[in-house]
Amino acid sequence: MAIDNAYYGQEGHGPYELYDIGTLDLEDGGRIDNCKLAVATFGRLNAAKDNAILIPTWYSGTNKLLEQVYTGKGRALDPDKYFLVIVNQIGNGLSTSPHNSADPADFPKVRIGDDVRAQHKLLTEKFGITSLALVVGGSMGAQQTYEWAVRYPEMVKRAAPIAGTAKNTEHDFVFTETLNEAITTDPAWNGGHYKASSDVAAGLKRQAKLWTVMGWSTEFFKEGRHRALGFDDIHAFIDNFMTGYFAPMDANDLLCMAWKWQRGDVSRMTGGDLRAALGRIKARTFVMPISHDMFFPPSDCQAEWRLISNAEFRPIQSVDGHLALFGVDPAAVAQIDKNLTELLATPA
Amino acid sequence: MAIDNAYYGQEGHGPYELYDIGTLDLEDGGRIDNCKLAVATFGRLNAAKDNAILIPTWYSGTNKLLEQVYTGKGRALDPDKYFLVIVNQIGNGLSTSPHNSADPADFPKVRIGDDVRAQHKLLTEKFGITSLALVVGGSMGAQQTYEWAVRYPEMVKRAAPIAGTAKNTEHDFVFTETLNEAITTDPAWNGGHYKASSDVAAGLKRQAKLWTVMGWSTEFFKEGRHRALGFDDIHAFIDNFMTGYFAPMDANDLLCMAWKWQRGDVSRMTGGDLRAALGRIKARTFVMPISHDMFFPPSDCQAEWRLISNAEFRPIQSVDGHLALFGVDPAAVAQIDKNLTELLATPA
Repeated sequence: MAIDNAYYGQEGHGPYELYDIGTLDLEDGGRIDNCKLAVATFGRLNAAKDNAILIPTWYSGTNKLLEQVYTGKGRALDPDKYFLVIVNQIGNGLSTSPHNSADPADFPKVRIGDDVRAQHKLLTEKFGITSLALVVGGSMGAQQTYEWAVRYPEMVKRAAPIAGTAKNTEHDFVFTETLNEAITTDPAWNGGHYKASSDVAAGLKRQAKLWTVMGWSTEFFKEGRHRALGFDDIHAFIDNFMTGYFAPMDANDLLCMAWKWQRGDVSRMTGGDLRAALGRIKARTFVMPISHDMFFPPSDCQAEWRLISNAEFRPIQSVDGHLALFGVDPAAVAQIDKNLTELLATPA
Repeated sequence: MAIDNAYYGQEGHGPYELYDIGTLDLEDGGRIDNCKLAVATFGRLNAAKDNAILIPTWYSGTNKLLEQVYTGKGRALDPDKYFLVIVNQIGNGLSTSPHNSADPADFPKVRIGDDVRAQHKLLTEKFGITSLALVVGGSMGAQQTYEWAVRYPEMVKRAAPIAGTAKNTEHDFVFTETLNEAITTDPAWNGGHYKASSDVAAGLKRQAKLWTVMGWSTEFFKEGRHRALGFDDIHAFIDNFMTGYFAPMDANDLLCMAWKWQRGDVSRMTGGDLRAALGRIKARTFVMPISHDMFFPPSDCQAEWRLISNAEFRPIQSVDGHLALFGVDPAAVAQIDKNLTELLATPA
């Protein structure tokens, strides 16, 4: 039985379309029948079909925040110039996910590669797109961006992975494990068999607290950025902003995404050889870590950038750390915009 | 009823002496009667009584590791030249602590200032020491070092806070909260009413996992330092090295130390004015953060260093991050040794 959850719907996240891409055979075995991708598009595909930009989502994220923070007339991701396709990842609550499937506690394991193949099917079969002017995404969106550029090198003309890696690190894997355990140690989670997401409130709040530590940075709090956002102290920030963000989400959906995140690795396509995998990339690539990111830090991204032939290393400066992705630091958003504008202006 | 725990004793941590300093009135109310400090000393106090070095302990730490990693003939902390006094902090399991007190679940709240006053009483009354050539400590030992230098500026000639701050940050406070919650969300912790520390094994293991993320660094794992230490992968490292370290410890003792750690703040002595507090320091001070420390990072330590008049900023380079304190990176230990040698050679 699916689990009702009002958070995931057109009211909060629309407008988006649900596309049924048919059966998706999964890399780890099993399959998803009638796999549905929730897709928000802006602008129009031109006659040459070469102005499409794909924007995949991050852990816990949906199309809506990406639309609001990163797209707009006069911006790099301009719907007057480009056909913007924001695809919600499998498991994010809007696309096919544990909570909206028949057996939420027994949803199959999905990998980044499954998402990317599903998106490829969507773009080629539903939209007739065979060339992407840009793939851009943050965090798990960056993992998908790398997977796209390695898997379909001819199709991806430009790539902009922000605050994410092509191959997840052991350190990041364990951080994500602590996020998962915040949920799974809540007795109300009950192996995934709960009635409502709100049953798992304690676990989701503990996850929100871990995100507070690793998602921002000590400088963020030292500079009083949380107070500037309207919260008296770090605990008011945790209780309202961070817990407010995670509390309405579905626990099994988050666990589904986390499993993918932990195992993101483009070198699965080249027998474990990361150099060979990244060597496949033909896209003009801007690698954009965020200066204060604690789990996709610049050093990890820089090491991968060195293995990509046509790439520039363009770190974004922000004390907001990883969650600069949320867009509450306008200067960080401006830096990303500037880089994307430049990237899109380069011939591909 | 005290809780038996074989980990805390002469066999694993001796030789040390237990000194009863009498009644300790606590800053947050209440008192500890017959407060006992476990103290290991090396070398001899000279006739002028001006060659004593005080070394307080960190969270979870005891005198033994400090002795083994940081002291020795020909080293900076040389027992042939100095009278080394390693004092175990209250709550660390060797000194008076929840587990060895009558009511482990209802141990009073202790602050860094209580420890420092207790140590002052010990040094002045038991040893007749009124001048310290150096106070040096890491992490919570650094918090105590700062407290010493601010509270007793005439007595502390030199100070070397390593990987710790004078005033704890909000960010660090919440990180520590996640450590505490790893324990307190374990049903076996039971509000502190457990029979044996091993009952809380699951909570202690979760704490060990959080330490794996925040205590080392992504570079530590990327460079394979855990494999060099003999562990096949990060999970073997967690299960054996990290969990092996925390599992025998007492949960209430750890919570007692964490409460102190969270509230470390020398500006309590100056009405909240950190500049005024650090301005009291007369000690020649070397501020030594560790380059890859994720919760007492160089930036937080550097901001405080600017407020100390007679201080140098001497960051230690190590991908081991905060837990470079453990001493498994010989290069980090050598840097600390070199700095301490230089500091001790400067006139005070």
